[in-house]
Amino acid sequence: MDRYLLISADGHAGPPAHVYREYLDPEYRERFDEQHQEQAALREASPFGQGDQSDFEREWELATDGDGGLTAAYDGAERNRLLDREGVVAEVLFPDADVLGTGRVSSSPFGTGLAAGSQSEPEVAVAGARAHNRWLADFCGDDPHRRIGVAVIPAIIPDMDTVLAMVREAKDLGHTGILVPTRWFDRPPYNEPWYDPLWALVEDLELVLHTHSGAGPTDFTGGYGLGPIYATEAGWWAARPFHVFIWSGLFERFPTLKYSMAENAAWWVPDTIRKMDEKWHGYHNTKKMGSLFRDALPNPPRFYLDRNCFFGASTPGVDDIERRHEIGVGNIMWGNDMPHPEGTFPFTHYFVRERFKDVPDDEARRMLGLTAAEVYGVDTAAVQPLVDRIGPTFEEVHGEDVVLDAPVEAIA
Amino acid sequence: MDRYLLISADGHAGPPAHVYREYLDPEYRERFDEQHQEQAALREASPFGQGDQSDFEREWELATDGDGGLTAAYDGAERNRLLDREGVVAEVLFPDADVLGTGRVSSSPFGTGLAAGSQSEPEVAVAGARAHNRWLADFCGDDPHRRIGVAVIPAIIPDMDTVLAMVREAKDLGHTGILVPTRWFDRPPYNEPWYDPLWALVEDLELVLHTHSGAGPTDFTGGYGLGPIYATEAGWWAARPFHVFIWSGLFERFPTLKYSMAENAAWWVPDTIRKMDEKWHGYHNTKKMGSLFRDALPNPPRFYLDRNCFFGASTPGVDDIERRHEIGVGNIMWGNDMPHPEGTFPFTHYFVRERFKDVPDDEARRMLGLTAAEVYGVDTAAVQPLVDRIGPTFEEVHGEDVVLDAPVEAIA
Repeated sequence: MDRYLLISADGHAGPPAHVYREYLDPEYRERFDEQHQEQAALREASPFGQGDQSDFEREWELATDGDGGLTAAYDGAERNRLLDREGVVAEVLFPDADVLGTGRVSSSPFGTGLAAGSQSEPEVAVAGARAHNRWLADFCGDDPHRRIGVAVIPAIIPDMDTVLAMVREAKDLGHTGILVPTRWFDRPPYNEPWYDPLWALVEDLELVLHTHSGAGPTDFTGGYGLGPIYATEAGWWAARPFHVFIWSGLFERFPTLKYSMAENAAWWVPDTIRKMDEKWHGYHNTKKMGSLFRDALPNPPRFYLDRNCFFGASTPGVDDIERRHEIGVGNIMWGNDMPHPEGTFPFTHYFVRERFKDVPDDEARRMLGLTAAEVYGVDTAAVQPLVDRIGPTFEEVHGEDVVLDAPVEAIA
Repeated sequence: MDRYLLISADGHAGPPAHVYREYLDPEYRERFDEQHQEQAALREASPFGQGDQSDFEREWELATDGDGGLTAAYDGAERNRLLDREGVVAEVLFPDADVLGTGRVSSSPFGTGLAAGSQSEPEVAVAGARAHNRWLADFCGDDPHRRIGVAVIPAIIPDMDTVLAMVREAKDLGHTGILVPTRWFDRPPYNEPWYDPLWALVEDLELVLHTHSGAGPTDFTGGYGLGPIYATEAGWWAARPFHVFIWSGLFERFPTLKYSMAENAAWWVPDTIRKMDEKWHGYHNTKKMGSLFRDALPNPPRFYLDRNCFFGASTPGVDDIERRHEIGVGNIMWGNDMPHPEGTFPFTHYFVRERFKDVPDDEARRMLGLTAAEVYGVDTAAVQPLVDRIGPTFEEVHGEDVVLDAPVEAIA
């Protein structure tokens, strides 16, 4: 049997602040320096690296040779070295590699990364996003078969012409997709016709539309259990664009649009789509609303999920895999979330076996790479020699008595 | 075998506007009249009863003798006549009977019903809630074994002393529980210590705490698919207090508090609580957050669900029943949602058989009435003669070849 083609639908990249600075238009550099100093001051108050490390943080440093994988966030040679070790041939690249807040690499400038959308000044957001997109284009350009660039687009700013110009720039820079903010905050929701020129252009340019988890509730500011409440809600806020896109008829008006929701699992999809379909089919609980649902869509919601929606379900859990047929095997794209510690890096071989050992070969191949190859237009012929060299073997994933490097207790 | 004790954990009651008017403090009556006229004008624009009725609305009128069950919303004799026919012995009473907007009965005055919390003037909300609570006390007082009153409390107003006074009034009026707004809008979220005096008093007075579905998102104002998006999200907004209450340690600080979430199903509970528990136990995806979750609660979230939380899952679906063991058989309380057309009224016998035919007798009895009897302190000895007369028989629920009045196609 051939080795597995592993494509990560969720990776993170970004350079240290001084590198981003060079990619910023000069008039924004002073402002960037100020913000960088403010963030450094905030980090001083952060527990990470301050001596009082958790078991998790200590073990994470050890498991990643003290580096946390952060050099690979911007150094292409190191990136490829780690990817080779992970068995990953290609990856989709989002911003914000440094989720533990070490400051060694930077978020996409001016708040244009995973929590984008809450920044108050559109002009500054545009400048920050442009810097990331330029840097990422260079990073991906160094190894275009392995690195799939996703440009950050501050789609909720009030100036649609600028948004459209940035999407065209993203295409010109060679990016394969765009990332729009997961939340719209006080700007028009994504079901508003105001965004139609954006979706039309994304479809026209054959870019893959993305959202990514990260933004959460904003109505909690303190009180009991703030962190746990946030962590519990984050998945819903990240999932929200899914039903908004579908019910708003986005995929009816733009039928060839491809949408990937990154790093938000997929275990929740079967219930969500089933309940949406029940409404459309006129089940008892919402029957009093009459034709409301069928007026909105000529096909049931499931139709658009099947055709247009993908789940970049990095680090899938047992539940994601168990429910794969209800989700759609062809709609799940595995990822390692490198270099985030909640991902499978640096133990991807171990986690792939853990999750896919009992999954039929054809289904595993689809989720681990084949769907992503199609969605992102990966040149599978060009990467085949790499697959043959580094991809996990069939025996490694499915064989008995295979022992692989496993995470230590603290980070398992 | 004994007949089944049916207690509905979700019923709705409220009189016509002119009756509420008499229960309002006199200084608010002029304002009430103005609002009543505004609402009447809005109804003129509503399709209900305007000739262009949907199949659903026509069939609903026929199935309910043209009345929609709305006389029973305030007329005790008619209520009991319908409950007898339904086989329901007792019921928990929330406001807002008229969800189809006929105007024949009124919502709890000044927006203090199921969508409470968005009204801008606390003083007016207090007056409206008081009027409903007084009316409901009289309505329940006429048949205290069958009618379990839930007082509406505008808990998010800035004046906690008034909130506490209203809770004491509710107890003095003989109510068994209180209903707080499902959403806090721009007021402090329910995880804030600011509410602790309220929860402490509710526990001290042994009142059952409730939220009820109804409030939904407020960031959509138009655009494509507005109604379907709202209907899809409503369940999450209604479910939100569950994880906020649990993670905020509400049931740790007030261990004997009983909380019932009315009319929001329960199929979503197993995944929600499992994911919360995974965080508490330190699963991989949130392990980087360290002791955050265990610092918030000394026991896993499931512990508090089992002990303190109930789901007034009126009109349960197949999924609610199938997942009863994962939810907790003893935490599910059936309801008929009378007189709402999304409920089982006027075909409760049919729907009870449909859902409980294959459920073991002891589990069915618990969900259909025994748990509610315990939670609300129903005098089961006093109502036993009524059960013997009107309750569904074992044969009717579980026997073969039983034919019951079934809803017609349009409202099935």
